[in-house]
Amino acid sequence: MRTSQYILATLKETPSDAEVVSHQLMLRAGMIRKLASGLYTWLPSGLKVLRNVETIVREEMEKAGAIEMLMPVIQPADLWEESGRWEQFGPELLRITDRHNRPFALGPTHEEVITDFVRKEVSSYKQLPLTLYQVQTKVRDEVRPRFGVMRAREFTMKDAYSFHLDDACLAKTYQVMHQAYCNIFERLGLDYRPVIADTGSIGGSVSHEFHVLAESGEDAIAFSTESDYAANIEKAEALAPAIERAAPSKELNTFDTPNAKTIADLAEQHGVKAHKGVKTLIVYGAANEEDERGLVALIVRGDHELNELKAEKLPLVDSPLEMAKEEDIVAAIGAKPGSLGPVGLDMPIIVDHSAAVMSDFVAGANKDGVHYSGINWGRDVADFITADIRNVVEGDPSPCGQGTLNIKRGIEVGHIFQLGSKYSEAMNAGVLGESGKNQVMTMGCYGIGVSRIVAAAIEQNHDKFGIKWPQALAPFDIAIVPMNMHKSHRIPDIAEKFYADLKAAGLDVLFDDRKERPGVMFNDMELVGVPFTLVIGERNLDNNQVELKNRRTGEKVMLDIDSAVAEITKLMA
Amino acid sequence: MRTSQYILATLKETPSDAEVVSHQLMLRAGMIRKLASGLYTWLPSGLKVLRNVETIVREEMEKAGAIEMLMPVIQPADLWEESGRWEQFGPELLRITDRHNRPFALGPTHEEVITDFVRKEVSSYKQLPLTLYQVQTKVRDEVRPRFGVMRAREFTMKDAYSFHLDDACLAKTYQVMHQAYCNIFERLGLDYRPVIADTGSIGGSVSHEFHVLAESGEDAIAFSTESDYAANIEKAEALAPAIERAAPSKELNTFDTPNAKTIADLAEQHGVKAHKGVKTLIVYGAANEEDERGLVALIVRGDHELNELKAEKLPLVDSPLEMAKEEDIVAAIGAKPGSLGPVGLDMPIIVDHSAAVMSDFVAGANKDGVHYSGINWGRDVADFITADIRNVVEGDPSPCGQGTLNIKRGIEVGHIFQLGSKYSEAMNAGVLGESGKNQVMTMGCYGIGVSRIVAAAIEQNHDKFGIKWPQALAPFDIAIVPMNMHKSHRIPDIAEKFYADLKAAGLDVLFDDRKERPGVMFNDMELVGVPFTLVIGERNLDNNQVELKNRRTGEKVMLDIDSAVAEITKLMA
Repeated sequence: MRTSQYILATLKETPSDAEVVSHQLMLRAGMIRKLASGLYTWLPSGLKVLRNVETIVREEMEKAGAIEMLMPVIQPADLWEESGRWEQFGPELLRITDRHNRPFALGPTHEEVITDFVRKEVSSYKQLPLTLYQVQTKVRDEVRPRFGVMRAREFTMKDAYSFHLDDACLAKTYQVMHQAYCNIFERLGLDYRPVIADTGSIGGSVSHEFHVLAESGEDAIAFSTESDYAANIEKAEALAPAIERAAPSKELNTFDTPNAKTIADLAEQHGVKAHKGVKTLIVYGAANEEDERGLVALIVRGDHELNELKAEKLPLVDSPLEMAKEEDIVAAIGAKPGSLGPVGLDMPIIVDHSAAVMSDFVAGANKDGVHYSGINWGRDVADFITADIRNVVEGDPSPCGQGTLNIKRGIEVGHIFQLGSKYSEAMNAGVLGESGKNQVMTMGCYGIGVSRIVAAAIEQNHDKFGIKWPQALAPFDIAIVPMNMHKSHRIPDIAEKFYADLKAAGLDVLFDDRKERPGVMFNDMELVGVPFTLVIGERNLDNNQVELKNRRTGEKVMLDIDSAVAEITKLMA
Repeated sequence: MRTSQYILATLKETPSDAEVVSHQLMLRAGMIRKLASGLYTWLPSGLKVLRNVETIVREEMEKAGAIEMLMPVIQPADLWEESGRWEQFGPELLRITDRHNRPFALGPTHEEVITDFVRKEVSSYKQLPLTLYQVQTKVRDEVRPRFGVMRAREFTMKDAYSFHLDDACLAKTYQVMHQAYCNIFERLGLDYRPVIADTGSIGGSVSHEFHVLAESGEDAIAFSTESDYAANIEKAEALAPAIERAAPSKELNTFDTPNAKTIADLAEQHGVKAHKGVKTLIVYGAANEEDERGLVALIVRGDHELNELKAEKLPLVDSPLEMAKEEDIVAAIGAKPGSLGPVGLDMPIIVDHSAAVMSDFVAGANKDGVHYSGINWGRDVADFITADIRNVVEGDPSPCGQGTLNIKRGIEVGHIFQLGSKYSEAMNAGVLGESGKNQVMTMGCYGIGVSRIVAAAIEQNHDKFGIKWPQALAPFDIAIVPMNMHKSHRIPDIAEKFYADLKAAGLDVLFDDRKERPGVMFNDMELVGVPFTLVIGERNLDNNQVELKNRRTGEKVMLDIDSAVAEITKLMA
């Protein structure tokens, strides 16, 4: 491709509304443009990268025995009503009505449509297992679309669905797909990790996310220092401390804390170390055994964070978790947040394992501006339950039993689930089993954020000059930059010959034939992230040489004109 | 692919709601399933055919210098307001609102989005000409979706847009794209014709449709018997007869026609031949030179049909054309349709050229149940205009000046337009011209109905047993049908070896390894339309032979086992 006939659309300035590096670079490198909030047009070089991802995803899906099909974006509401998700799904499900006023949704995922399809088309256990997939446009009406294509409203996803007679068969296909995902990210040349994950609104039991590791990642991932264990921090278990609670050594005493609302305030104003205090968080839940709606207290150590996902899975706590309103707290306790604590609290109290082994600790006295010191479980608080309700922190023992936990940031680019019979049961999707009886199928589902991978790859592979594409993702294999071509007699001919020869060698070549200064052209090629640049300049031609620059390593090598194409081809293979 | 691990989904019965052959066969051959009215899921073998079309379309677009990009399905309303089409477009434009109540449309076409893109990204004449295209999901909320994917609500289109400094450059690219379209349909192996077409709601001046010829086509196309001339009947010019009008030979007389409302009634009840009478059609338009809204009479010969598109383009006639309501006709004329005619009619009268050369003809007397005979223009009707307002008919002289017209049926699968500045002017899309002044760009647009091509190809290529795919479109190159495999010792091994060897030779092979009767397997392969079937049976194996069946020709040849793969590969090349 000649830049003169292309739409390179690089930008010098960083667009002000792009918060993260990948969004900035995708705009600056001419990969995408915003059409409206969360809606992006893919420019030619952006689309090429997207297609590179799609191709590898398709190849690995086929190898894993999945068969490609294509379902509509527009889905009838009645299927979503059947699964129960028409109600459950929030406003992210973009609901529309057609000209006859019939309700539809723009699909954010296709469990309902595929389950409906399979229940109609598959009738016998002999047709199982079956794995179907599609690469398709998905829609999620995000409340705050951001980070460019990372969290867009319209995006490209690969979603696969497997159908089985039993869970053992599902587990087998799940492993095959897990491996296929590993193959995909290996081939894309990305630093990634499969991590144990929560199943969220999709449902099911076992689930793994695939993360591209990058400092800018929205997710925190806990890794064992000694084993393969990795889990989303949402899901990583915080083991109960192996130590016994120390016996009380202090009396229960109040002290005035008029200006201390937080653990940090207590530390600063009263010298209470964070791990010697507790946080008391009030949420809605079951107030008593009769299941009356009321308030529930959640208590974690002062230096720990509540894990909302763990908390909302407890039977006493409402799901989704909702922090109690101040007026409800004041009405029930007589004090505002900032002065709350477990002593004398008349509601269910759930204490994190790490907080439950504390003694002589500090907490609010349930009276504004007053705290207790010397609190001891049992002596001062009789009734409470213990549970794992906090996020793990660096240095926690790994739940796998080996080593301690490290925390890294990741970008979720894939998610696989053993759904079990959640959808097949709700939608009555069964087959005739071997015994001749109808049997509900069991399902897996397997998603990859194809467009999100493009952004995640950039978060992981860039420098201050632009994108450093792994070869498998790059929009072009190599760029030809002839210096001052319009001032030279021999350079145009040699550049044209390289363009023809490199194309003939099967490479995807970007020939920068613009009448621009060399600096402009080099900057553009670095910004766009072409892995190799062949520089053709007068001085080197005098020695019958051209220069090859490697974008990832920064390395420059001189090649003899006559053997250059052969050497480049060898390098790429 | 093994059928045992595939989802073949063939049906024995013709689904009752499928009206046309392609829809019936796409359902029966397991290519598509209906999700909801006008919304179809593409099954694996259907999707393969769709992808075959996409691949050829992309290759020819690239050869023509077009660059691929991808725009969102969801488009903001403000762009459509800018072009004026938010108002103009009917309910086929599926309008939606997001969670913030902002209006969007699901794109049926992308003129607005691409024009907005180019006006922002292209600033200089040096960047022109530029042709961009996408292969993408389009949405049209059809009032009555029908014929399967032929007229669906969600479908796949290739749409390309070209941008130019002037119309001469546009005309050049238009020719290149015209040729690319011819190449595409040639490569697809379809019998097609480019025809002169109306520009409709897209707009512009010059336009061609590409039709796949098939008896079931919705469009009528007029071809010259002597030249390349071909036009949609909507657009084909009916030349004014070269003959002079004969002098009156009869008096004007009334005769009672109480039961004759149509030309056919007049012929049957009164012996008036169709070509000796005229039809008088009353429509809304400009009643006089002051442009007051009123009625206009359109007159065509009794054996001719009004061409609404031609009529509504006349300055006096409202566009879109609307037949006058009976109450308005009775109020203005005093008679009902069925007894109308030009004599004494107090409104503008537009007479088709062929009707204008008639003499001594019959028409209604503008009195219920009465007609005139012996009408003559001039003598009996003083004021009238002549124009081409009828459809051409078989045998009319070709407007190209050579030969006469034949009429055939076609399915529109492509449409290209010289748009000119319709969108670029409305949306203020200009570049700096060579002189340094801002210059509005001129545009072309080029559409192909990718999913519709699949259906059209079947309309043209089928028999009573199923689909007869042209090689380029077929979902598989060849099927292997081993007869009674589970009863034989040697057949499974030989079939497996052919499966491996044919795949290794680069062919896409469907291996029917089901435990079905040979008849079931043959029927399925014919229905699906696999171009070649390799039959492996005991009797032929005794002679060291296998049988190769050609789906299109019905031909069967015997191949020696040892040379079969080589011969098949040669045949496919």
